[in-house]
Amino acid sequence: MISVVLCGGVGSRLWPVSRELYPKPFIRLADGQSFIKKTFVRAAAVPEAEALFVVSNRRIHFKTAEEYAASGASLAATFILEPCGRNTAPAIAAAVLEAIRTRGPEMPLLVLPSDHLIANQEGFNALVSRALELARENRLVTFGIRPTRPETGFGYIEAEGERAIRFVEKPPLAQAEAYLASGRFFWNSGMFCFRAGTMLGELERYAPELLRRVEASLAASPAERDGRIELAAESFARVPAVSIDRAVFEKSGNVSVVTGEDIGWSDVGSWRELCGLRPADADGNRTSHPEKAVLAEAKNCLVDNHSRLVAALGVENLLIVDTEDALLVADKGRAQDVRTIYDRLKREGREEALRHPTVFKPWGYYVLMGEGERFKTKLLALKPGARISLQLHHHRSEHWIVVRGMAEVTREGEVFFVNSNESTFIKAGTRHRVANPGKVELVLIEVQSGDYLGEDDIVRFEDAYGRT
Amino acid sequence: MISVVLCGGVGSRLWPVSRELYPKPFIRLADGQSFIKKTFVRAAAVPEAEALFVVSNRRIHFKTAEEYAASGASLAATFILEPCGRNTAPAIAAAVLEAIRTRGPEMPLLVLPSDHLIANQEGFNALVSRALELARENRLVTFGIRPTRPETGFGYIEAEGERAIRFVEKPPLAQAEAYLASGRFFWNSGMFCFRAGTMLGELERYAPELLRRVEASLAASPAERDGRIELAAESFARVPAVSIDRAVFEKSGNVSVVTGEDIGWSDVGSWRELCGLRPADADGNRTSHPEKAVLAEAKNCLVDNHSRLVAALGVENLLIVDTEDALLVADKGRAQDVRTIYDRLKREGREEALRHPTVFKPWGYYVLMGEGERFKTKLLALKPGARISLQLHHHRSEHWIVVRGMAEVTREGEVFFVNSNESTFIKAGTRHRVANPGKVELVLIEVQSGDYLGEDDIVRFEDAYGRT
Repeated sequence: MISVVLCGGVGSRLWPVSRELYPKPFIRLADGQSFIKKTFVRAAAVPEAEALFVVSNRRIHFKTAEEYAASGASLAATFILEPCGRNTAPAIAAAVLEAIRTRGPEMPLLVLPSDHLIANQEGFNALVSRALELARENRLVTFGIRPTRPETGFGYIEAEGERAIRFVEKPPLAQAEAYLASGRFFWNSGMFCFRAGTMLGELERYAPELLRRVEASLAASPAERDGRIELAAESFARVPAVSIDRAVFEKSGNVSVVTGEDIGWSDVGSWRELCGLRPADADGNRTSHPEKAVLAEAKNCLVDNHSRLVAALGVENLLIVDTEDALLVADKGRAQDVRTIYDRLKREGREEALRHPTVFKPWGYYVLMGEGERFKTKLLALKPGARISLQLHHHRSEHWIVVRGMAEVTREGEVFFVNSNESTFIKAGTRHRVANPGKVELVLIEVQSGDYLGEDDIVRFEDAYGRT
Repeated sequence: MISVVLCGGVGSRLWPVSRELYPKPFIRLADGQSFIKKTFVRAAAVPEAEALFVVSNRRIHFKTAEEYAASGASLAATFILEPCGRNTAPAIAAAVLEAIRTRGPEMPLLVLPSDHLIANQEGFNALVSRALELARENRLVTFGIRPTRPETGFGYIEAEGERAIRFVEKPPLAQAEAYLASGRFFWNSGMFCFRAGTMLGELERYAPELLRRVEASLAASPAERDGRIELAAESFARVPAVSIDRAVFEKSGNVSVVTGEDIGWSDVGSWRELCGLRPADADGNRTSHPEKAVLAEAKNCLVDNHSRLVAALGVENLLIVDTEDALLVADKGRAQDVRTIYDRLKREGREEALRHPTVFKPWGYYVLMGEGERFKTKLLALKPGARISLQLHHHRSEHWIVVRGMAEVTREGEVFFVNSNESTFIKAGTRHRVANPGKVELVLIEVQSGDYLGEDDIVRFEDAYGRT
């Protein structure tokens, strides 16, 4: 069986920690592990799993691969990289086609979103075993979660025994209450199991146009290299964006639902739930970094704070999420509507919807530390062996101060080393590169100075990560 | 007449913008001018004023002097610098003694706090004229403000015509309501007028110990230099901390109150009042930087924001004050209690009560931009002609990148120039200094690197501002 981990969707209700380029799967929980890392561990812990497919946006690939490496999972992994998000049906279609191409149509797939939690691995494994049996009988299998509250934020599956009768999109409250009472309705967890050939047949029947376009995109894509398949941008952009629920499951009469075990599933879809994982103080406040918070007569507040001091005075039922460049203050009861803030920022093209001041790169990451008239400062961290592309800026000089490790600097023809506590500088118009030849992380402060400091003032001559 | 501007008190209800080293008088209003600058302008616009005394903490002297210079006021100014805050009675006693020493006991003084607003200068001048007449009759004159609401945060003066009958400290609400209704009670504005000799006599009578100690401190202080009198630290620390109201006005039977004009006085003592000076949007929200705020279904909120994006969702009557290193979220009705947060931070010795990441220095200012393991980055801005002390660090190297202007760098025996977009570095253990020989501000980025980056790793050899 192949575990297919889907890493799409921003998780906009968790803004400002989630961003387009730092989506929900990367958010770290109190134990320091991200949702996606936990998903990789879970995918590998299913006894039947023999390989892993990861479908993600190409812009977050390096970070995804890093999380996989850090998970310690040892499944052979293939990364299918989308140039843009097209919802779940195209992602699953690509995984299905690639599975058939490499392993044939009998191969079962287990599709796992990378942005929820499952507490009970043993129960989960048992459920997967049952799903696999049904998948081998050519069923499309969904994983239903027995509702514990009249949730209006999830889709529901109506079941008769193991047979799925009907899929319902997010219902109004009265209906959700009726579903809860009936005992026949289950939350749709977004996890699926099926044979590759079965799903191919269903896609051919219910979404032939979509399937053709994904096939065309795969055909136009370069061959797999280093475990990566980069879907061709132009053709993939023409694939319709639609969920697998809508494209297939709502239409097919061939759907089963497994519900037998309480697997400890939780969606953690909003700040309310994410903060709810932390312990409360005597006044019901839950704070991520209590040592940086001063709560005075504050009650039942959720505070997700980081480096800055947060003081709250005489407030109740507030959600306060503080990040380096953006702050959210919301009524706790409105946690579901945080997405409207994200949507608005995105519409307005604001940087705060797109990325954090910390940006992950194939060579490591940088943190924008400060900027002002004629300057910008960044912290750069290069992994051992990593090198930034050979490049040139027309309008800015760059000054590098090595804080930790040893830098190998190329400046036009010259190559030299800069040790910790030393610095060098690169005049505008000079070809340059920095590399980390060592075995420990290289940390340097980059100060850019000049009249124009836009990221687009860059000419790349050579890049270890194919970005020229 | 000498105008005496008092610059003491933190204005802790305006934390986190006000800090111990950036007290309320320095806070800028919407027009870009600080309270203290407006006070200097006001003090100079009184026709009878012929000189200015400024009593402030020595740690904020350079900033105070800068604000005075920027005010354009041309009164001859003497700065009396306190080593520590001792409330208003010692500050006024020092001004009285200095006035008598230099001008004799007949000289009238007009005492002005530097942290409130007066909209009507003409009315104010008329009130001062009347106060001066009374002062020349050897009266201690207070300036009463006719109450417009049953304010519980101010002291009151009971008056019979121009005679002050009684001083009352902050009253409970019912009493404040009765005062408002009576028409006999006025707010105590903290402004006073008297002949120096009159106040000396009253101090001798009601606060002889305090007077003796201030005299001793002045006697132990070095002579005036460049318009500055630095009160001797050891002796001034022994002066009791007490307000002039308590020390003299409450006890003396010789107090007048002038109330004749509506001078447009406002205390602007809390965020509620400070934000109230800004226009409200259709939902009653008042925001300092609307372009950096996203308010969704937020009502009647006060938002004081600066560089970061602030999003508010579904909240009402909140006060949100966001600064570089500290955030305050409070119920608007609790604006008076913000001081409890400040007091707590001060008790805990937190940096956020003491100073901002932006720190004013005699040579200009620096901004702490970022710090991490083994590094710290600062922006330094040196005024034209300014020079940092010749110094040495044992544990850190310093790297200087010139962003604007031209730097003159001394490194051991060597003196050289570093132009914009160029950089240099100073190894640990090397004597060094940077100066701005130019006519424009010098801006540079300083990156410190090393094992130990505490501010106390500094040996000063020579300092233009007497700090060796």
